[in-house]
Amino acid sequence: MTSPIPVYLDCDTGVDDAVALAYLLASPAVEIVGIGTVSGNISAAQAARNTLDLLTLAGRDDIPVAVGAHDHLDHAYGGGAAWVHGENGIGGVVLPRAEREPDPRTAAQLLVELSHAHAGTLHIVAIGPLTNLAHALELDPTLPARVDAVTVMGGAALAPGNITPAAEANVYNDPQAAAALLAADWDVTLVPLDATMEHTMSEEQRGMLLADPRPFVHAVGEILDHYFDFYLPTYGERTSALHDPLAAVVAAGGATPARAPRVPVVVDVSQGPGRGQTIADLRGQRLGARDHDGVRIRVVLEVATPVAPHLIETILAH
Amino acid sequence: MTSPIPVYLDCDTGVDDAVALAYLLASPAVEIVGIGTVSGNISAAQAARNTLDLLTLAGRDDIPVAVGAHDHLDHAYGGGAAWVHGENGIGGVVLPRAEREPDPRTAAQLLVELSHAHAGTLHIVAIGPLTNLAHALELDPTLPARVDAVTVMGGAALAPGNITPAAEANVYNDPQAAAALLAADWDVTLVPLDATMEHTMSEEQRGMLLADPRPFVHAVGEILDHYFDFYLPTYGERTSALHDPLAAVVAAGGATPARAPRVPVVVDVSQGPGRGQTIADLRGQRLGARDHDGVRIRVVLEVATPVAPHLIETILAH
Repeated sequence: MTSPIPVYLDCDTGVDDAVALAYLLASPAVEIVGIGTVSGNISAAQAARNTLDLLTLAGRDDIPVAVGAHDHLDHAYGGGAAWVHGENGIGGVVLPRAEREPDPRTAAQLLVELSHAHAGTLHIVAIGPLTNLAHALELDPTLPARVDAVTVMGGAALAPGNITPAAEANVYNDPQAAAALLAADWDVTLVPLDATMEHTMSEEQRGMLLADPRPFVHAVGEILDHYFDFYLPTYGERTSALHDPLAAVVAAGGATPARAPRVPVVVDVSQGPGRGQTIADLRGQRLGARDHDGVRIRVVLEVATPVAPHLIETILAH
Repeated sequence: MTSPIPVYLDCDTGVDDAVALAYLLASPAVEIVGIGTVSGNISAAQAARNTLDLLTLAGRDDIPVAVGAHDHLDHAYGGGAAWVHGENGIGGVVLPRAEREPDPRTAAQLLVELSHAHAGTLHIVAIGPLTNLAHALELDPTLPARVDAVTVMGGAALAPGNITPAAEANVYNDPQAAAALLAADWDVTLVPLDATMEHTMSEEQRGMLLADPRPFVHAVGEILDHYFDFYLPTYGERTSALHDPLAAVVAAGGATPARAPRVPVVVDVSQGPGRGQTIADLRGQRLGARDHDGVRIRVVLEVATPVAPHLIETILAH
């Protein structure tokens, strides 16, 4: 049996971040060694509060949680997405307040330190705007050499965007940071809306979380309630797109992408209508996925098997 | 029986332009009343020469052909796409030279005059860069009120581009002109790569054109030979994407789009990586095509029935 992969999680908790967190805590394939928060769905400070509270409920006060960037590289935090994630970021659910406070380090500092402690094996799972990762790359440009892999929930390759017609929210919230991440010399797996919008959790599956006797798992089910309402007009039923959870599952090896070519990806950092979009060069892929030579960015276009059963099963089996 | 729709054709002939021309000449649903040429696949002057030569072969010296813009709104003509369309734009095929010369008017002037002669019924079919149409709108801003409909082969909504990862060649060659066309107050049907890349002509179908005793139809089959080579790596067989022909068929009512929502479309006129792309707002379309109120741009995402049989049949039956 191989030892679990050490994971640094960068998140903006966030409803689907909470689900991804529950999965990563439960998966025997990974071990979360540190968490940094960033403004996105909610402010970095509130995301840290939500994360600390969730970890206490889960009995995992051992995991350091560092507050990362409040503002983004070239603009201030825009106020989050309360209409999606609720006023407090976790669907309005009030959790027991954890006794501990965030780690005194910044998220970027924590990440750099973890990259030394777990040199060559650390896996970064980034499910919020990529500001902290850009700061870490600036703080220590040698970081990529010590990181085994980076998995990002972000972008829209051929699928429509969500925050604009062309852009997905995580990348749109800090296009410059996404560009810096994609320009660095490490293996990146990008999990864009093309894949995540095709994976949903049913009301029945949410019910399985609610029915769990453990307060943490029950709380995750409760947190999803508001999010299920948000997706009603999109899918025609109460459900949840599994954005961040899919990235977590792919990172932990719980699902194998059906189509994930290695292709150049450019982030539009202009102020034009394409701002924040991820332009992947997907020309010439009609005859099957074709990797471009020397490219280290893998774009997950499709995960064929529904991922929700594995997600729920893993969380419940923990 | 309704009378045929008067059509002004704007083209950069061009291999697939030649096929579209053959179809529009043959279709009983339309009557070409004038043609303007523009630089794109080849220079505007050479496109006019090719068009004149084709029309003479087809016995249609009655149709005026005006040379339109050599250069585009904010940049000079880039030299065409000889690797796709051959050095002379029509796959290297040398046609008998027509005796007549182009109309003395510019394409924009011709279009404006035709819009008066056929006020309320004129249909514009634009299958090259949209420079001439932008010039016509500038020459006479009242033009849209006299035009019944505009059908454009251009753009890529969710499909990859062809000239860049995000942009289709006609729009990329003059993004400002495309933006002007889409901003005008008329009904536009945009036929982008999403639809056109899914429609191809087989070698057997090309053989039916070659076998026709009429020199014009035979020549169209010959012209396609080089283009069939170009598409070999894309499709894994010698074939032709039916870009311009599909737009012509849709304009003439020979095919009904399966999915064609009316949605806002913005052209990226920046110098960034998204330059020349058509950003269609296709969010919220999972439950079926949904038109946005007040939008007059219809984006053809899919034509379900293979269009090649109708195309070939119409050309041969003429």
